[in-house]
Amino acid sequence: MSESLYFKKHVFFCMNERDDGRSCCAHRGAQAAQEHAKRRIKQLDQNGAGKIRINKAGCLDRCDDGPVLVVYPQGTWYTYVDQSDIDEIIEVDLIGGGVVERLKV
Amino acid sequence: MSESLYFKKHVFFCMNERDDGRSCCAHRGAQAAQEHAKRRIKQLDQNGAGKIRINKAGCLDRCDDGPVLVVYPQGTWYTYVDQSDIDEIIEVDLIGGGVVERLKV
Repeated sequence: MSESLYFKKHVFFCMNERDDGRSCCAHRGAQAAQEHAKRRIKQLDQNGAGKIRINKAGCLDRCDDGPVLVVYPQGTWYTYVDQSDIDEIIEVDLIGGGVVERLKV
Repeated sequence: MSESLYFKKHVFFCMNERDDGRSCCAHRGAQAAQEHAKRRIKQLDQNGAGKIRINKAGCLDRCDDGPVLVVYPQGTWYTYVDQSDIDEIIEVDLIGGGVVERLKV
């Protein structure tokens, strides 16, 4: 199947913002992380059809594990704290095809 | 791998809105379609972990094929015209495990 995938790796960042006091990815750095990932993938010339796509998404419904992102088609879920975590996910998973075990949720 | 997927089927609707005159999914019924799908999956008691998740997403970068949605982990892309197309995607793909060939992009 993989040769027919439109994007080799399709990444969705949960960007959900709650205003009821419950935790949400938006309040845990999701926007900065998504923008960093998008910029970095572009710098690496890895964005576009047949390569990698970094997307925003609405609530991914894993608030307790947030902030979260999911990488398809593998369905690997990660949390992250800062940009160095995002860089590691990019290097090891998106580019390298591996898994960053310590960030998996 | 599939037994470890958090969602059996994870669906992302492109909700992107352009204001520069170029075509975009938001101007082609994306919001109504996404809301319809979410409601229908809930009615069928198919929403949640281990089952199906209907999500909003930012621009999926397939504007010329829009409106579009993508079903992961399969990576099947569909366009749609109305709610009956969404119902068919739900019945045949999300619930039935098949593919709606006539709507594939």
